[in-house]
Amino acid sequence: MIYGIIGTGAIGGYYGGKLAHAGKDVHFLLHKDYQHVVDNGLQINSCNGSFHLDHPFVYNDSRKMPKCDIVFVCLKSVNNNLLKELITPIINNNTLVVLIQNGIGLESDVQQIFPGLSLAAGLAFICCAKTEPGIVNHQCYGSINIGNYSCPDESLVRSLTEDFKDAGIEACNMEYNEARWKKAVWNMPFNGLTVALNTQTDLLLKNPATMQLVRDLMMETIEGAKACGVQNIDASFADKMIDNTIHMTPYSPSMKLDYDFHRPMEIHYLYTRPIEEAAKAGYQMKKLKMLEAELIYLNQNNR
Amino acid sequence: MIYGIIGTGAIGGYYGGKLAHAGKDVHFLLHKDYQHVVDNGLQINSCNGSFHLDHPFVYNDSRKMPKCDIVFVCLKSVNNNLLKELITPIINNNTLVVLIQNGIGLESDVQQIFPGLSLAAGLAFICCAKTEPGIVNHQCYGSINIGNYSCPDESLVRSLTEDFKDAGIEACNMEYNEARWKKAVWNMPFNGLTVALNTQTDLLLKNPATMQLVRDLMMETIEGAKACGVQNIDASFADKMIDNTIHMTPYSPSMKLDYDFHRPMEIHYLYTRPIEEAAKAGYQMKKLKMLEAELIYLNQNNR
Repeated sequence: MIYGIIGTGAIGGYYGGKLAHAGKDVHFLLHKDYQHVVDNGLQINSCNGSFHLDHPFVYNDSRKMPKCDIVFVCLKSVNNNLLKELITPIINNNTLVVLIQNGIGLESDVQQIFPGLSLAAGLAFICCAKTEPGIVNHQCYGSINIGNYSCPDESLVRSLTEDFKDAGIEACNMEYNEARWKKAVWNMPFNGLTVALNTQTDLLLKNPATMQLVRDLMMETIEGAKACGVQNIDASFADKMIDNTIHMTPYSPSMKLDYDFHRPMEIHYLYTRPIEEAAKAGYQMKKLKMLEAELIYLNQNNR
Repeated sequence: MIYGIIGTGAIGGYYGGKLAHAGKDVHFLLHKDYQHVVDNGLQINSCNGSFHLDHPFVYNDSRKMPKCDIVFVCLKSVNNNLLKELITPIINNNTLVVLIQNGIGLESDVQQIFPGLSLAAGLAFICCAKTEPGIVNHQCYGSINIGNYSCPDESLVRSLTEDFKDAGIEACNMEYNEARWKKAVWNMPFNGLTVALNTQTDLLLKNPATMQLVRDLMMETIEGAKACGVQNIDASFADKMIDNTIHMTPYSPSMKLDYDFHRPMEIHYLYTRPIEEAAKAGYQMKKLKMLEAELIYLNQNNR
């Protein structure tokens, strides 16, 4: 199986790097860091064991890449307008494209661009960041849930999960909507609140007022998911997410890093779309709607 | 009539100063600025005409003040624990104490300390700030609504309103709860959001997302007021408040100044109490509850 990684940042670098390190055939598309990685390779500093890829297959143009069986899209979702150009050269009729991106509604938008394409969602529960060109720092966790959106070949999705497991990554297949909304339960409180309050996960959970607010926002997400037909996420999942977060290294989620580095924030898929989907299904995410407004304001005043 | 001003900041300095300038018998209690005002008097820079009081009656200890007919409490409400000591020396059986402070629930707390005391609320619609010791800068507006809480002598409350008018201040008597909640309609969105988003009134209203959020928070306040029995504030009042704010000088509300100068914020009476009162009456102010949590977090990390 040939893997293509579109966007070799923290997520693409880690998951693609782990597969390559396990001997899979992985091809990385890079942009700004291309020459650096050609010269120096890719370094994964990981809590589960660090490693270095001396000569990964890297490209600065997807038209130079081979046709792939599986493509990981690891761009920031604010750049998904580039997808048509980037993946057209590397897909064929059977390619599975996995959007390892956060949020709700991504696959339906991409499906409109590529009506026949096999799509899946990849939801990564991981703390990692690209700290310098060609260097990924993986702090903790690392599991990935795969939700099949439109791939008729279930065995291809299962092969992906098996390859992940071979590479030492905890991976599991999950109903598509459940996979996306479960991740949203963590994302919706922590990404926005760390930006709005200029803080990190640990400080939010040490203060009783914001600890309660985190839980309220998780419960709004769970109610939104229910309205959208995902019935099997309940309050105990919020408790588990909070407990996991209490026990992990103090963390700045990707939206906080984007804000700090004056990059556009992924407000559309992380907030606007889930809020809209829930509203269409009859549930108003009131507090999350307020957080969205705060983020839109901060995004606009952060350029 | 003898007036006593407890707390000669922006509000006490402006309203007490206007009365003194109009020839009323006004006695000012000061703390840090006492000696400065003894030496230099009190300067009111006002959009309606500036003036200087060369030798106002000033005190650094309320035990040296005369008994007063009317007392204005213009402290920050976080210091209301000092009230018992401060006003006991200057009140008699007929004194009217007017709490010119923002928020909900102030009079009922003070009444518990002084069960027989005549209390009223003063709600100031004014943009002003004490910029230096002894100097008040009054940018715009300046009207005050008086709501009688427990004064059996209605004529005393009317005399106060007449004295304000004599001094060129637009003043009117209003049902107590209506007076407090109307001011809350402005306070609850603008005080908290300018802190949470580190901004000013004008920028909040220029961004469509936060403009809508301001309106949502005003409507939550209006619904809370309704639940608490105040029926005659409706959406048109929110529109009027927004319109007034669009046309006024870009403004940092008092809570924003408190935050910027690392002083404790008046979260209890501006947020916690109205949210509690509305909840007791059956209405959940969900977005304002979220804003309260953000403010509690920011307050605790601002010392």
